[in-house]
Amino acid sequence: MNHGLRVERLQLALQTVDCLQLLVSNPLNIRWLTGFTGSSGQVLVSSDGAALITDSRYTEQAGEEVSASVEVVTASSVVEDRPIDHLIGRSTADAIGFEADHLTVTAMEEMRASISKAGSNLSLTPTSGVVVQLRRTKDTDEVDALRSAAKIADDALVALLPKIRPGETELWLARLLEWEMAERGSERVSFSTILASGPNGAKPHARPSDRVLEDGDLVVIDFGATVHGYGSDMTRTLVVGGNPTAEQERWYNNVWAAQQVGVNTVQVGNELRSIHQATLDDLTQSGQDGVYEHGTGHGVGLFIHESPILSVRAEGVVAESMALTVEPGAYLPGVGGIRVEDLVITTASGPETLTNFPKGLAA
Amino acid sequence: MNHGLRVERLQLALQTVDCLQLLVSNPLNIRWLTGFTGSSGQVLVSSDGAALITDSRYTEQAGEEVSASVEVVTASSVVEDRPIDHLIGRSTADAIGFEADHLTVTAMEEMRASISKAGSNLSLTPTSGVVVQLRRTKDTDEVDALRSAAKIADDALVALLPKIRPGETELWLARLLEWEMAERGSERVSFSTILASGPNGAKPHARPSDRVLEDGDLVVIDFGATVHGYGSDMTRTLVVGGNPTAEQERWYNNVWAAQQVGVNTVQVGNELRSIHQATLDDLTQSGQDGVYEHGTGHGVGLFIHESPILSVRAEGVVAESMALTVEPGAYLPGVGGIRVEDLVITTASGPETLTNFPKGLAA
Repeated sequence: MNHGLRVERLQLALQTVDCLQLLVSNPLNIRWLTGFTGSSGQVLVSSDGAALITDSRYTEQAGEEVSASVEVVTASSVVEDRPIDHLIGRSTADAIGFEADHLTVTAMEEMRASISKAGSNLSLTPTSGVVVQLRRTKDTDEVDALRSAAKIADDALVALLPKIRPGETELWLARLLEWEMAERGSERVSFSTILASGPNGAKPHARPSDRVLEDGDLVVIDFGATVHGYGSDMTRTLVVGGNPTAEQERWYNNVWAAQQVGVNTVQVGNELRSIHQATLDDLTQSGQDGVYEHGTGHGVGLFIHESPILSVRAEGVVAESMALTVEPGAYLPGVGGIRVEDLVITTASGPETLTNFPKGLAA
Repeated sequence: MNHGLRVERLQLALQTVDCLQLLVSNPLNIRWLTGFTGSSGQVLVSSDGAALITDSRYTEQAGEEVSASVEVVTASSVVEDRPIDHLIGRSTADAIGFEADHLTVTAMEEMRASISKAGSNLSLTPTSGVVVQLRRTKDTDEVDALRSAAKIADDALVALLPKIRPGETELWLARLLEWEMAERGSERVSFSTILASGPNGAKPHARPSDRVLEDGDLVVIDFGATVHGYGSDMTRTLVVGGNPTAEQERWYNNVWAAQQVGVNTVQVGNELRSIHQATLDDLTQSGQDGVYEHGTGHGVGLFIHESPILSVRAEGVVAESMALTVEPGAYLPGVGGIRVEDLVITTASGPETLTNFPKGLAA
């Protein structure tokens, strides 16, 4: 991972928001910026560079994980040598930006009190979304990790396929799918697996239950693997027994067509909200009942639902190297649901799909 | 679950901190207080009662989950009917307490701006740990859930036992253990399973690796199941092949003896920090090398590491119906680790142990 380049991108971004130094406390932002995955630490970034300030419990882990482009400062675990004192000592300006979207009110007040107690005049300035915004654009290492995670998920679903038959429970199949991903190198599920059969499929966020699959049931499977912290996300809908009714086919084709429209809208320069609008409009115009009310998709990375969220409120345009999901669905209460989702990477020549398990109800 | 009683306990607690009404935003506190597990909602508690304020996406879920003792208010999803307006409308005092340990600076500022925009003079007052403090004492429903989770973990380890043999990897065994828990009704692992063999056991928070077990290796297994959101926590250390050396036996017995001293110190009225001190002192006085530097234990409930944390900084005394872990260890870099942990419930007649898998290196 090229953490040095990420620090440089952040330094440039800080100039545009008139912030001379930023204290990064969101653990995912810290991981993205430095490689460090410990549960205690903060990163101070200024034009001078980046320093991870942690304590002596993490000396070994920081040594193994943190990029050479980031300085590591470990406060000893005695009370007289606190991370905050290092922070104050290294501060290169009168004010320090903090991540207001992450820091709690208590944590901010504690920091303020520590600064005051140390006799410093350093002031704290709230910032919002600076690093999260940079994380929207993936570098090649990140795309490689997402690609590996998506491949694991594809292969795990292939392995599960013969087990999706009448008589099995949702819970058992979900566990089996997770096992197959773990066997292929997934660090963990990227989010709670959804495997919803029959009427359960009508709830977009159903949890696997002890419902027993019946012949002809629709099964919505929404799941992902994780590689190097990066999670994949894919949804397929299948019919138990492999013989869909004409009505199920029509329903599926409406959703699938809308999903293709959505993916084709993922073009560099397009408004992000146009992906949502084009997908939703296509499905609505098909005359399909139960058109989804959730967002059409979201960014994916170290966090599974990260910026940008593809809804009517999405701001900005599609940039190169974004990782986005496109996942329209149609839900009929009491009957079931159909959702089709792919994870795509944006490139100058159009979207590249990372999730390649075949589509179709009888896949 | 008796949510009505929990609301009453909170109402009493608010009187002692001079808070006329509290806005609860920590999702675990919301679940504890109302039963609601949705990802968006806040609870307003005053002497009049408790109201869950959420939006129309959660109407059905709130109807299924929320106790009758809590009023449910669902704002429609149109912009003109926001949860914050309901909050202002229902406010029964000039000030409202908020959970400063949970709310981010951004969320607090947004709330402030909304209040001001609505022409209200409502002021926001930080509070700290009010509900978390109440959650330290478990009611019978909570103890039943913890007992079920601990039983699942016990039984899963029994099932895993014959597979802990030379040639298997840590990762495979950890997955198998998790599978056995899921098969027995665990909703999810209560935290990332630790299964650390040989030298890996010297790291208290090791992650399962592809290391292959060898005859005579020590294996530290720290894991838990979840029932109704309540997670269990147990550690056992075993020797691969079942034939410990005399040195391993001595080491194990030192840790086990200290662990028993710790459990015996969990008596209602004792200082919480005395559990830590007694355990640590016993292990140190045994002459054991590599005595642990982590805390001796922690509270367990809806969150796996919750208040109280048993360290030198622990404040307060042991009360009835607390769920606490006692988990001393000794770690020899390059050689391995031994840790023994039980989950106990405090009762008037002493600690009751919920984790009952036998102890001993050859269990």
